[in-house]
Amino acid sequence: MVDIFATDKLRKAYPEYQQFIALHLYPLERQLLSIPFSEASAILEEKRTLARAMGLWAPYLPAEEGHIGLTMLEFAQISELLATTPYGHYVFNCQAPDIGNIELLHRHASDEQKQRYLKPLTEGAIRSCFSMTEPGHAGSNPLLMSTTAARDGDEWVINGRKWFTTAADGASFAVVMAITDTGTPKYERASMIIVPTNTPGFNLVRNIPVLGDTGDGYHSHSEIEYKDCRVPAANLLGAVGSGFRLAQERLGPGRIHHCMRWIGICERALDLMCRRAVERDMGDGQLLADKQTIQHWIAESRAEINASRYLVLHTAEMLDRLGAKAVRNEISAIKFFVADVLGKVLDRSVQAHGALGLTDATPLSYWYRHERGARIYDGPDEVHKSALARSVLKPYLNLQDQSVK
Amino acid sequence: MVDIFATDKLRKAYPEYQQFIALHLYPLERQLLSIPFSEASAILEEKRTLARAMGLWAPYLPAEEGHIGLTMLEFAQISELLATTPYGHYVFNCQAPDIGNIELLHRHASDEQKQRYLKPLTEGAIRSCFSMTEPGHAGSNPLLMSTTAARDGDEWVINGRKWFTTAADGASFAVVMAITDTGTPKYERASMIIVPTNTPGFNLVRNIPVLGDTGDGYHSHSEIEYKDCRVPAANLLGAVGSGFRLAQERLGPGRIHHCMRWIGICERALDLMCRRAVERDMGDGQLLADKQTIQHWIAESRAEINASRYLVLHTAEMLDRLGAKAVRNEISAIKFFVADVLGKVLDRSVQAHGALGLTDATPLSYWYRHERGARIYDGPDEVHKSALARSVLKPYLNLQDQSVK
Amino acid sequence: MVDIFATDKLRKAYPEYQQFIALHLYPLERQLLSIPFSEASAILEEKRTLARAMGLWAPYLPAEEGHIGLTMLEFAQISELLATTPYGHYVFNCQAPDIGNIELLHRHASDEQKQRYLKPLTEGAIRSCFSMTEPGHAGSNPLLMSTTAARDGDEWVINGRKWFTTAADGASFAVVMAITDTGTPKYERASMIIVPTNTPGFNLVRNIPVLGDTGDGYHSHSEIEYKDCRVPAANLLGAVGSGFRLAQERLGPGRIHHCMRWIGICERALDLMCRRAVERDMGDGQLLADKQTIQHWIAESRAEINASRYLVLHTAEMLDRLGAKAVRNEISAIKFFVADVLGKVLDRSVQAHGALGLTDATPLSYWYRHERGARIYDGPDEVHKSALARSVLKPYLNLQDQSVK
Amino acid sequence: MVDIFATDKLRKAYPEYQQFIALHLYPLERQLLSIPFSEASAILEEKRTLARAMGLWAPYLPAEEGHIGLTMLEFAQISELLATTPYGHYVFNCQAPDIGNIELLHRHASDEQKQRYLKPLTEGAIRSCFSMTEPGHAGSNPLLMSTTAARDGDEWVINGRKWFTTAADGASFAVVMAITDTGTPKYERASMIIVPTNTPGFNLVRNIPVLGDTGDGYHSHSEIEYKDCRVPAANLLGAVGSGFRLAQERLGPGRIHHCMRWIGICERALDLMCRRAVERDMGDGQLLADKQTIQHWIAESRAEINASRYLVLHTAEMLDRLGAKAVRNEISAIKFFVADVLGKVLDRSVQAHGALGLTDATPLSYWYRHERGARIYDGPDEVHKSALARSVLKPYLNLQDQSVK
Repeated sequence: MVDIFATDKLRKAYPEYQQFIALHLYPLERQLLSIPFSEASAILEEKRTLARAMGLWAPYLPAEEGHIGLTMLEFAQISELLATTPYGHYVFNCQAPDIGNIELLHRHASDEQKQRYLKPLTEGAIRSCFSMTEPGHAGSNPLLMSTTAARDGDEWVINGRKWFTTAADGASFAVVMAITDTGTPKYERASMIIVPTNTPGFNLVRNIPVLGDTGDGYHSHSEIEYKDCRVPAANLLGAVGSGFRLAQERLGPGRIHHCMRWIGICERALDLMCRRAVERDMGDGQLLADKQTIQHWIAESRAEINASRYLVLHTAEMLDRLGAKAVRNEISAIKFFVADVLGKVLDRSVQAHGALGLTDATPLSYWYRHERGARIYDGPDEVHKSALARSVLKPYLNLQDQSVK
Repeated sequence: MVDIFATDKLRKAYPEYQQFIALHLYPLERQLLSIPFSEASAILEEKRTLARAMGLWAPYLPAEEGHIGLTMLEFAQISELLATTPYGHYVFNCQAPDIGNIELLHRHASDEQKQRYLKPLTEGAIRSCFSMTEPGHAGSNPLLMSTTAARDGDEWVINGRKWFTTAADGASFAVVMAITDTGTPKYERASMIIVPTNTPGFNLVRNIPVLGDTGDGYHSHSEIEYKDCRVPAANLLGAVGSGFRLAQERLGPGRIHHCMRWIGICERALDLMCRRAVERDMGDGQLLADKQTIQHWIAESRAEINASRYLVLHTAEMLDRLGAKAVRNEISAIKFFVADVLGKVLDRSVQAHGALGLTDATPLSYWYRHERGARIYDGPDEVHKSALARSVLKPYLNLQDQSVK
Repeated sequence: MVDIFATDKLRKAYPEYQQFIALHLYPLERQLLSIPFSEASAILEEKRTLARAMGLWAPYLPAEEGHIGLTMLEFAQISELLATTPYGHYVFNCQAPDIGNIELLHRHASDEQKQRYLKPLTEGAIRSCFSMTEPGHAGSNPLLMSTTAARDGDEWVINGRKWFTTAADGASFAVVMAITDTGTPKYERASMIIVPTNTPGFNLVRNIPVLGDTGDGYHSHSEIEYKDCRVPAANLLGAVGSGFRLAQERLGPGRIHHCMRWIGICERALDLMCRRAVERDMGDGQLLADKQTIQHWIAESRAEINASRYLVLHTAEMLDRLGAKAVRNEISAIKFFVADVLGKVLDRSVQAHGALGLTDATPLSYWYRHERGARIYDGPDEVHKSALARSVLKPYLNLQDQSVK
Repeated sequence: MVDIFATDKLRKAYPEYQQFIALHLYPLERQLLSIPFSEASAILEEKRTLARAMGLWAPYLPAEEGHIGLTMLEFAQISELLATTPYGHYVFNCQAPDIGNIELLHRHASDEQKQRYLKPLTEGAIRSCFSMTEPGHAGSNPLLMSTTAARDGDEWVINGRKWFTTAADGASFAVVMAITDTGTPKYERASMIIVPTNTPGFNLVRNIPVLGDTGDGYHSHSEIEYKDCRVPAANLLGAVGSGFRLAQERLGPGRIHHCMRWIGICERALDLMCRRAVERDMGDGQLLADKQTIQHWIAESRAEINASRYLVLHTAEMLDRLGAKAVRNEISAIKFFVADVLGKVLDRSVQAHGALGLTDATPLSYWYRHERGARIYDGPDEVHKSALARSVLKPYLNLQDQSVK
């Protein structure tokens, strides 16, 4: 929690989450890391029930609906806390991709869609997924999509192949991005459609091994074939052709969520590194903590994490105040800056643990594998850097044009 | 200027400094960079007169004394602006080491000392220096000092050798750090004494070449021999043995000043890199700006500078609110974090300019040389990292101790 | 193959291995990467039979015993080839830890030991393991060992706990390092003892998950409890107290093996990156190969791999010529230099592949996880760096001592 | 000297140069670094006379002309030695750009040109320069040249502007690269012409400050205006239109010279860092040498320098054996690899020296400034990386083309 970003709401909620995690989640870590999601699920369900009972469920949802109603800036700080343990977000129904779908449906779903999909999702009765990335296309260029949704009478007929659809295994519905019109301007060609996963033609081909872990259930990333997959016309989310716009709206806050999650992971990795440093006797009369190299790793991590947090919280503050469009550059910047810090801090903490860091004795191994994707998903860092640079360079190019005249 | 850190005072002052610099200082840069300080001095004096006339002089001094009276958090943001051109701080009487001495005398000088030294210094009528670092001792350990001041009747007799005493050449007085008592606890052995530079025994041995530049006047770093140098007992600053305490007090805010100065330099280096990128035709139908490498340099610089600014301003905000002692860790962190960013941004901008970046056509060459010391002076980065780490590790070590019991 | 290091023997053997790998191993990769070792074993056994039949088996063994009889310098270059595919070394009976044990037994085993353990190991009829690292001790300091072997009549009674004993699962015997005498000088306290894995008291506790992969059989790292584990006195390898000396002898060449293996992995990762670069259409009229960032990754990888190869081959050449002791510094240098290059090249290749790089479609994911340990095992890089530095500094310290006199 | 690259000639010459440098050049360093070339010149001339007398002059020239007649591979190893002190190459007439011009004239000059220009240059009676780079054009693209040489009767009339013409100040002639025909294929448009510097129209505009050092004489880089500068037709070097070809021929070996020079500088910087480490008492009972950070700097520098040397010597060996064209990729690789190592080693050594490293007490400050250009001149690293990558990627692109058919 950063002093000047602390509100009364946050000051109250923060220690409640802190305590919940310390009491109910850290002690479960080693067990949860050693079993598949299908087994972990029952244990987690208990904790979810408790979270609901304690009024800590989905704190980003409005106060008028009985939730805490945190702003982005407030929630970001809670999100960091939740990220310090692998299933933290899940227990409070704050997990991607559901949180993104909840926000999406909250704003753009019809009343019927809300009743049918949003309500149970909000309550944690079902799970969902978001099906956008396709194999064979640069994920960073949304215009290269091949999946189509053709209107046939009162139905959309979807054909195509998606992959890295997170948490599709066991989800009740997918929000699918598909080309609905190739004749329009390129940013108006795609639409989002809600597809119940039990629809014929929704074929979950496989869970993809991600750095060796195929996973299952919520904890998986699937390849999905859409083969003449028919859903009612009413399953369209928002207007025809609004897919890219809605995706942008979803991705901005989504990246803030990711970044705060990464910062939470960093804090824990640093905490583990410090514990290790004071526990490890080097056999030469010194602790590992006395060695200059680990001291520098700790100091650099401390400074980089602080810098990351300020960058992200200021972006969240601006997003709350000025809207998502105004912070596009900031969001590109935090995406690659924090992903880089995450990689460095995890690597240092693993190295500080030696062989132990590779085992499942700490969550480091889990994160080391599951967060390597941070520099890839939601647009590889290379793409975000070029996008930010082009934006920074724009006024200079205009200057050039004027000086030519 | 960062929105949430902008006060009314700052909102008014900021554009005034911006305009002054754009109109009166940027156009002088190439000329000033090609002549010694002794020649530049007259030109700068004109600008100083103008700054005074416009009410922009020493804005960190109290409003009740006729200045703008900026807080640390406010002044830090002006300081960044001033740093975008080599003599920016000097023109507004905000230059180190005078600003540090002004703050020091403001708090700890006797009335007589204030009248005699502080007043003309504040008015810009004289210059001063701060004589602490010694050759042959690790600068990072203030306990390794050899210079002594022995009380002899109504006088202090100073003997020793100092170096890297910035701006001693032409200064009217030095604040000298010397051991006054070797029998006391080690942090109470040193005192600060005001030594007019025309005192017999104050021998300016040479101006030291710093990366090839010996410089002169304000723009120099001297080696000084104190040989039976006698000053009145009344020249003692503060209490006997208070030297280290006063030095700490001076160094904390001093590091914030340095960091904001570095950030200003970074902003200008990034600005120059962007200008270069859009001007340089690569001869293959592309501008330098179209190349991915420079795009990444620009994006990384943008993100790193923003991160640095937030880190430093939050530290300044905390310092204003909680005092210097409370932000010791933060100050260590900004010292090495921003010095590192400074090095990277300058290096990228030089490389982007090619051979031109090595010439005096831009201020890059000047900064590349004069700011290499950023990772060394005021404690090398390595020392700050270890200090921060030890502080981060302290609660873990206590934890260990308890678990042993 | 490096021209000036190519001998006639190597010139003949090199393309034979190259062809074998291309024909018989690359095509199996995806299958092998998706099944446990217990399933892969039968397929690999076929290839091993073929390798034996073609005279490519264990080429580092002497010509007079019917093998190719390569020198370290020659074998190093073959080893690089074998490393370009995950089971390359295994198929030719060149895999660690067996190759190290073969070299060890070849030199130090009694005739009976050779007959009983070395012969079937050489023939590939059995597998072995090397049990040295212990949990709870800094692996880099061999003096911190707790496992003991006490002489009781005609038997050694071993007690202790080891971990990261590679390939213990399914091995026929272990070479165990244990303290046999605590009263002698510290480097003469340990001995090596051969322990058949079916000895009562040899308890394989578990296979340790390494970055999520528990593995099985040859492809695993075990935790082993030695509990009153009794073996005949004749199972001692070499003299009592010779453990450290033998370990040193084993580790030097072992590190050259590791390094050449890493270089082979790098070559393949670079190859995969290049293939990816020319296959990936960026959708903007350019291939990934046209982008400056991947070009720089490719160029830097190319230069770093070449540099690594020269460093290692020159070390191998010196080891053949001057013996292991003479190249201690060189071996420390290659250990951390090549491990660092390995990490960078793998990371770049994964990033260049995007999400695909995280899947099992290429061996990158396998290596990314299984070679993270390269910077840890056989002494963490930090320890090798300090060791090398102390050796470099030694003559300077002597200089100091003399100048004092 | 690398064992396997040591010839009898080299084994004899190496210690002679080593001794000369130790006896005659190291002791002069501080003096030479503090005075302009015009003052240093007389001192250096004495040493040059001595070098000639001892048979150590220009050892790369043929034995049949009375020199040592070293191959590239042999000379490269001597060159490293010479580079360990700022004027090392100069004293033995091995300095750029003269050595490059000597090689050029040796191969391509007419008998008359040899008599008039090569002979006195070889003897060290005169100096020369090479005038290629132009302001306003990307130096990395030789096709972007603007300087022209028009044939007018028996004369060439040269017009244009060059800069960073090294050592033009005081040189007797320049080899000028100019466009002689714009109608031919682009790589045949330029020619090289010998221009005595006293020719009317050869106007040395200024010596350019390079990181603050304007220098003079041999130690300078000039901007030169060619204004209707007329020289006899016979001053053409080689054939009309052969300029680029000759430049390529000159640049390949030139880059090997640069790289070996950089390695020599690195060795000295490492040596200075080690000396500093054992001399510096940290005041906490430890020497600087006992700190892990400097140990790692020393170890990393040791490994990187060794790697650099092998890379460059193998390139030299291949160049001797296979010709310059065959090692184009290797030359690109060493250019950026060694320039990067140079930057890192110098930076570490400066940092290890603290403030002292910025002064002229060691040659570090000189190199830190004068070798920043290493990543820029002779093609910026970015250009070499892309060139190497394109070459590495070529066979893959061909593969692609075939698979399409």
